[in-house]
Amino acid sequence: MTTMPRFQSLVALEGGHVESAAQFSRKQIDELLELADLLMTRDRQGQDTDVLARRVMVPLFFESSTRTFSSFCAAMAKLGGHVVYLPLESSSMTKGETLEDTARAVDSYADVVVMRHPDAQAFKRVTSVTRHPVVNAGNGIGEHPTQSLLDVFTMVAELGTVDGLTIALVGDLKHGRTVHSLAKLLTNFAVKHLYFVAPPQLAMPDDVIEFVRSRNLSVSSSSSLTDEILSSVDVLYVTRVQKERFQSSADYESVKGHYVVTKALMDKAKARMVVMHPLPRVDEISTEVDDDPRAAYFRQMRYGLFLRMALLVAVLGKTASVC
Amino acid sequence: MTTMPRFQSLVALEGGHVESAAQFSRKQIDELLELADLLMTRDRQGQDTDVLARRVMVPLFFESSTRTFSSFCAAMAKLGGHVVYLPLESSSMTKGETLEDTARAVDSYADVVVMRHPDAQAFKRVTSVTRHPVVNAGNGIGEHPTQSLLDVFTMVAELGTVDGLTIALVGDLKHGRTVHSLAKLLTNFAVKHLYFVAPPQLAMPDDVIEFVRSRNLSVSSSSSLTDEILSSVDVLYVTRVQKERFQSSADYESVKGHYVVTKALMDKAKARMVVMHPLPRVDEISTEVDDDPRAAYFRQMRYGLFLRMALLVAVLGKTASVC
Amino acid sequence: MTTMPRFQSLVALEGGHVESAAQFSRKQIDELLELADLLMTRDRQGQDTDVLARRVMVPLFFESSTRTFSSFCAAMAKLGGHVVYLPLESSSMTKGETLEDTARAVDSYADVVVMRHPDAQAFKRVTSVTRHPVVNAGNGIGEHPTQSLLDVFTMVAELGTVDGLTIALVGDLKHGRTVHSLAKLLTNFAVKHLYFVAPPQLAMPDDVIEFVRSRNLSVSSSSSLTDEILSSVDVLYVTRVQKERFQSSADYESVKGHYVVTKALMDKAKARMVVMHPLPRVDEISTEVDDDPRAAYFRQMRYGLFLRMALLVAVLGKTASVC
Repeated sequence: MTTMPRFQSLVALEGGHVESAAQFSRKQIDELLELADLLMTRDRQGQDTDVLARRVMVPLFFESSTRTFSSFCAAMAKLGGHVVYLPLESSSMTKGETLEDTARAVDSYADVVVMRHPDAQAFKRVTSVTRHPVVNAGNGIGEHPTQSLLDVFTMVAELGTVDGLTIALVGDLKHGRTVHSLAKLLTNFAVKHLYFVAPPQLAMPDDVIEFVRSRNLSVSSSSSLTDEILSSVDVLYVTRVQKERFQSSADYESVKGHYVVTKALMDKAKARMVVMHPLPRVDEISTEVDDDPRAAYFRQMRYGLFLRMALLVAVLGKTASVC
Repeated sequence: MTTMPRFQSLVALEGGHVESAAQFSRKQIDELLELADLLMTRDRQGQDTDVLARRVMVPLFFESSTRTFSSFCAAMAKLGGHVVYLPLESSSMTKGETLEDTARAVDSYADVVVMRHPDAQAFKRVTSVTRHPVVNAGNGIGEHPTQSLLDVFTMVAELGTVDGLTIALVGDLKHGRTVHSLAKLLTNFAVKHLYFVAPPQLAMPDDVIEFVRSRNLSVSSSSSLTDEILSSVDVLYVTRVQKERFQSSADYESVKGHYVVTKALMDKAKARMVVMHPLPRVDEISTEVDDDPRAAYFRQMRYGLFLRMALLVAVLGKTASVC
Repeated sequence: MTTMPRFQSLVALEGGHVESAAQFSRKQIDELLELADLLMTRDRQGQDTDVLARRVMVPLFFESSTRTFSSFCAAMAKLGGHVVYLPLESSSMTKGETLEDTARAVDSYADVVVMRHPDAQAFKRVTSVTRHPVVNAGNGIGEHPTQSLLDVFTMVAELGTVDGLTIALVGDLKHGRTVHSLAKLLTNFAVKHLYFVAPPQLAMPDDVIEFVRSRNLSVSSSSSLTDEILSSVDVLYVTRVQKERFQSSADYESVKGHYVVTKALMDKAKARMVVMHPLPRVDEISTEVDDDPRAAYFRQMRYGLFLRMALLVAVLGKTASVC
C-alpha cells in the first residue's frame, strides 16, 4: 500500500512561472496555504528548514516597492536561500539593453526571479526568454497574485476558512491590481456574498464583475459602506482612496468619510470578523483601530512572509524536502 | 554540583532592545567583551559558528552610513545569518506612511532590526510597536551604544583592561554622540582619569560632565592637547573637528593645529598607549601615524565586527549555542 | 605512494589578489577552467558545495555594472557565502575619506573584495593597504581579468579547446579592456591565428599587438570583417562599436554595417563555431541570430558564473574542500 505524497498538487508548480491568481486550482491553493501554515508552525516552534540553501533569488523590480520586495527577500533567507540585489539604478539597461537581454542575464545565474514592472505586458516578454521560474510581484494594472494568495491565507488563518464568508472589498476598486487579483481568486471558494464598495468613479471594472459572476459568486456593488454591509461582513478589506484620482478636492471630500474605518465604525461590525489592508495605509484606517483584535492588517504582512516561503518552495521543487 | 552557565548576565538581553550605553551592567559589558573575544579567537582559528542561520537582520537606516551599516551586515553574515537590504530611497515612506507602520512592516519578517535615524526620538517610536529586538545604530545627537562598546572592547583587547587607564577624548565633544556614549560607558570602569580636550566652542556638554562626575570619575577639561596630557594618556581618542562648526575660517585655523595628531606629537606619548578614532578620519590624524604600532584606529573597526557579532548573538538568545 | 593533490597550481592563488590576466600560468588557467567545469557539473547534478559558508565578499564598485556585479554575488551565494552590499551612494567617501581608508574599512570585515574603479591605478592603491584578497572586476582602461578567463572557459566548454583555434576579435578594440585582457590571455594557448578586426579609428593599441606578437602568436589586423575571415574563424568575438567614439555620424554609418552580425553573415561562417560577446549588446548582433546554436553569448554569462565561483574558491583557499 502506498501513501499519497503530501502537497501532491504543488508538484505541477515546480519550474513554472507564477503569473496570475487565476492559474491555481482550488487544490493547489489549499495546499499552498497548508504548506504556508506548516512553515509558520515550524517557525513558531523554532524548527526552521534549510531547503533553499545555495539557491539564488533575484528581485527584478522596475517599480518601487519596499513591502513586497523585502517580504520575498526575507522569505528566501528564512529558507536558507540567498538574494542577489541588483543595482538597477546603475543598470546596463541604461546602456540601451532590451528587457529580454536583461532577463537573460539575470536568468543565467538566478534559480528564481521575482519581478515587478509598470507595464502589464513585460511579464510575458521576460518569461519568453527565461529558463528559470519567474514570480509576478505586480505587473502594472494587471495582477499581484502573491498578494491575493496571502490575503486568502490571512482569512483562513484568522477565521478558519473562506467558504461561507461574507466579504467586502472597499475603496478604490478601479485601479488596484490587488483587489482585481483577490476577487478572481475568491471565485475558487464558496464565498457567501461579496460586496464591492467604492465611489462610482472608482468602481470595480466590469470585466472583473463579469468574471466573478460567471463563476457563480453572489456579488453586489455599493457606493457607500452602509451599516447593513458593515454589520454582516466577516472580512472588511480596505484599500486606499487616493485624492489624486478625483477631479476636484470637493469630489474627494464628499466621499472620503465613507471609506475611513474608525473606532465608531468598528462598533457596528461583528465581534468576530477581520479588517484587512494591503498596506501601506495612510488615512483610510484610523490608528485608533490598530489595537482592536479584529485589526488583522499588520498580522497580514506576517502571513505574507510564510505564503511567499511556500510559493518559493513550490516553484523550486522542494515541497518533498519540507515534509 | 551544578556549574554556572557562561555568559549568564547576557540572558537578560535576549529579545530586548539595545538603546543606550547606559543600559548595561558592568557584568554585562564584561561578558559581551568576553563573548566578542571568544568569537574573535574562533575566527582566527578558522572555527566559525553558524548560530544565526536563517535569522534575518534588517538595517533600517534613515541616515547615511557605510561603516556601521556594513559592519553589522558582515557580523550577521559571519554568524550564518541573513540581511534583507531595503530599497529605502524608493520606500513606501514616500507614500506618506508613518514611521510606526514602516517599523511594523519590517518587524513582520525581521528577527532583529538595526536602526539609525537623525531624530533622537525615533528609536522609542519604533520600539513602541515592534515585537523583535531593535539595536540603536545612532539616533541623532543621542547615542551610538555599539560604537562605545567596541571602543571599550578595543581598549581591553589592546591594553588588557580599562580599569586604571588615563583616557583623553579629543576634538568636537559637543556634537559627537560617539563620545557622549563612550563617556557614559566609561563610568562602569575604574578609569584613573578622563580628559575632555576640545576648543571652548565644542566642549563636552554639561549634562555629560555631570553624569560622569556623579559616578565618581576623575575628570578634567582642557582647551588644548598639552604635553602633560599627551605624555600621561593610555588612550588618545580622537574625533573630527569640522570646519563648518566654526563661525569663521580664522576661528577654525586658530584651533585646528592643536587637534591634529602628527608623528611629532606621537613622539611625546607613552611607548605603550593607543590612538583611537571612530572613523572616517579626514585631517585630524596624519597618515604618517598609520604605521605606528600605537595607531589602533584601523584595528578598532575589526574589533567592532566581533563586538557586534556578540551583541547580535545576545539579543537573539544564542549565547548558549556559542559555548 | 602519494597522489598529487588536484588543482595543485591553484594553491598559490590563496590569499592573493587577482589583478591581471597576465598573472596566471597556463597550468593555473587550465586548473581554474577544470575547477569551473567541475562546479558546473555538480550544479547540473544538483550536488552543490557549501565551501564558502560564513565567508563575506564585498563588491566595491565605483563604476556602474549590473552583469559583473551580480555574477560575482551569485557565485558567492551558490557556494554558501555571503555578500555585504555597500550603500556607496551614501558613503563615507562623501565625507572626504581617502580610497585607502575606505579600503581598510572594507578589509576589516571582508574575506574577499571585488573591485571596479574607473581609474586604472586605484587597484594598486587599494591592495597596498588590504590584508584580504582583492579581485579586479575592471580597472578603467586597464584590465578585466575575470571576463577574459570566462571567455576562454566559454571557448573550451563550447569547442573543447583553445589550442588550434582561429579567433577574430571584432569591433572597438581600442577602448575595450575586455579585448585587451583576452588578447593577452590567449598568448597562453597555441591559437592558430588571431584577427583584430576594427575600423582604423578603433584599432587594437600597438602595445597589445606587440605583446601578443612577442609571445609568438600569429596575428593580423583588418579594417573589415571579410568573407575570408568569417569563413575561417572558430570564434567570432564581437564587441560594441559605440557611435559616440566617431567624429561624425557619417564616419560611424560608413563602418557600422561591417560590424553587425546578421543571419546573412552567419550563413558564411563555419557550421561549428561560436559567436561571443561580453554583453550588453545593442545593435552589433542582430536578435535574429539569437536562436542560432552557434550564438554562445548568452551561455557565456552562465560559464562566467562558474568561472567566478572557481576563482573565489581558489583565492579563499578552498580548492581542497571542493574535491
